Amino acid sequence: MEVQFLGTGAGVPSKERNVSSIALMLLQEINEIWLFDCGEATQHKILHTSIKPRKINKIFITHMHGDHIFGLPGLLSSRSFQGGVDELTVYGPKGIKSYISTSLELSGTHLTYPLTIIEIEEGKVCEDNNFIVTCKQLEHGIPCYGYRIIEKDLPGELQVDKLKEQGIPPGPVYRDIKENDTVTLSDGRVINRKDYIGPNKKGRVISILGDTKETWQNQSFVEGSDLLIHEATFDQEKVELANDYFHSTTAQAAQLAKDSNVRRLLLTHISSRYQHDDVPQLLSEATQVFSNTELVYDLYHTRILRNDMER
Amino acid sequence: MEVQFLGTGAGVPSKERNVSSIALMLLQEINEIWLFDCGEATQHKILHTSIKPRKINKIFITHMHGDHIFGLPGLLSSRSFQGGVDELTVYGPKGIKSYISTSLELSGTHLTYPLTIIEIEEGKVCEDNNFIVTCKQLEHGIPCYGYRIIEKDLPGELQVDKLKEQGIPPGPVYRDIKENDTVTLSDGRVINRKDYIGPNKKGRVISILGDTKETWQNQSFVEGSDLLIHEATFDQEKVELANDYFHSTTAQAAQLAKDSNVRRLLLTHISSRYQHDDVPQLLSEATQVFSNTELVYDLYHTRILRNDMER
Ligand SMILES: [Zn+2]
Ligand SMILES: [Zn+2]
Repeated sequence: MEVQFLGTGAGVPSKERNVSSIALMLLQEINEIWLFDCGEATQHKILHTSIKPRKINKIFITHMHGDHIFGLPGLLSSRSFQGGVDELTVYGPKGIKSYISTSLELSGTHLTYPLTIIEIEEGKVCEDNNFIVTCKQLEHGIPCYGYRIIEKDLPGELQVDKLKEQGIPPGPVYRDIKENDTVTLSDGRVINRKDYIGPNKKGRVISILGDTKETWQNQSFVEGSDLLIHEATFDQEKVELANDYFHSTTAQAAQLAKDSNVRRLLLTHISSRYQHDDVPQLLSEATQVFSNTELVYDLYHTRILRNDMER
Repeated sequence: MEVQFLGTGAGVPSKERNVSSIALMLLQEINEIWLFDCGEATQHKILHTSIKPRKINKIFITHMHGDHIFGLPGLLSSRSFQGGVDELTVYGPKGIKSYISTSLELSGTHLTYPLTIIEIEEGKVCEDNNFIVTCKQLEHGIPCYGYRIIEKDLPGELQVDKLKEQGIPPGPVYRDIKENDTVTLSDGRVINRKDYIGPNKKGRVISILGDTKETWQNQSFVEGSDLLIHEATFDQEKVELANDYFHSTTAQAAQLAKDSNVRRLLLTHISSRYQHDDVPQLLSEATQVFSNTELVYDLYHTRILRNDMER
């Protein structure tokens, strides 16, 4: 499970930061890539990564502001041009269907793959064998959602030593024991899996919020996340500006991470008013509140490890 | 009068070439910049030029394919974000109005400047004191236009030596003579301007075609252009592919330039199948037919001089 940022700016692209898009790479888990938002030139940024557009099969849109959606028609077209055939599903607020279908129709774009567009409401967005995604409305002046990606717990390891103690030698039977509640051995003994399996491996939780002003109502939604990705459009001095424009500051994002027992915080959606030199100050405003914070940049890439592993 | 290419690729962006957009810079003439097409990430390319989005006040769209229009909503929004207040007019085929208004409405974009969108038909597109723009349908499977930008002739130089011979000394009267058909001097003599003015300075003509397959019908439209900008999606070996997909080859574009007495040809809209190393071969296919040809690249920039001046 890895995350790569394709755009970390706010509102307009700059030479340093493109507008919003985040790739959640679930290649080891389910051989899929999920995008969160798709600002203009997301497909251009992808050219500088290892991401194959045909591997992207879910796109989650947080809200309809242009810096979060204007790259969608181009990405969808290019995925087709490059011979993508696997189904792609786009989840987003009301209006996303009309935006995509109008853009594709008027440009005469015929996709080579099935495209499903789902307009979401608060609650469960989708579920497969490995993941559940839920969403919650944030406070951004227009409908805007945060997504919580919940990895299901994995069964624990087979306790090989214990099996050997009972005189059960390694062999295909070990897989039978792992995959079935009970197994009858050739000698007639009945083995209950629960007696020979370690504790579940806790699934990871990633919360990716769209643009939002500070509100205590986001707390329970991101509670206990292994990773929280949060906007930090403004520095702490501009807290009123942030409030007026339905955005957050560095320190506000850090406070949410702290109050919600998050393990790790990544700050993105940085206003183009800030230059490279401003980053240390922005970051320190956050780390003073919540130390395990990073302020990311375009093409920043990281692995999301389980709670019990070192980062 | 200068031209800069913001994207010289076809269909999909590559690391080397972005999708289509061309800036015609008329800063010395009328302090305006005109764009021809606006593929995705045109505004990103502009960040690497001296072009100010607020100076762009006309955008001409050749056709509705995504690689020619998907950068429009973002450019229009950012021009607003950056405080543009001057009117902007977009000219394009039927559908352009619906595309732009849907994108802006659904993204909640409110522009700070007046935007006019005009759906064009063959014939005159617009005219001001200095320029006339006309358009013609090409052959591209969907409605697709070429634009001919005609600079109006400028009056010739005042023949100062001849005035002096007649005993008329330099002074404000020279400007009167230049600006009026007849002037009565203080001594009662009547001066006819036509007797003291050199020949008109011929205005320049630039033809910028959208995507098109080869057809003799484009000849009269580009006839005598000082500069022809033409697509060359394919090399000469792929002439059938070009035909099937309503595109042109290198040599076909050169043949049109030759047959139409064009002075100079710039080839663009190069398929992403070609790499940097293929350029010499592509170019030589064209120069064998029409020697004054260049194959342009992203951010290529050139001045368009008058016929009587060196390039
Ligand atoms: Zn927003
Ligand atoms: Zn086309």
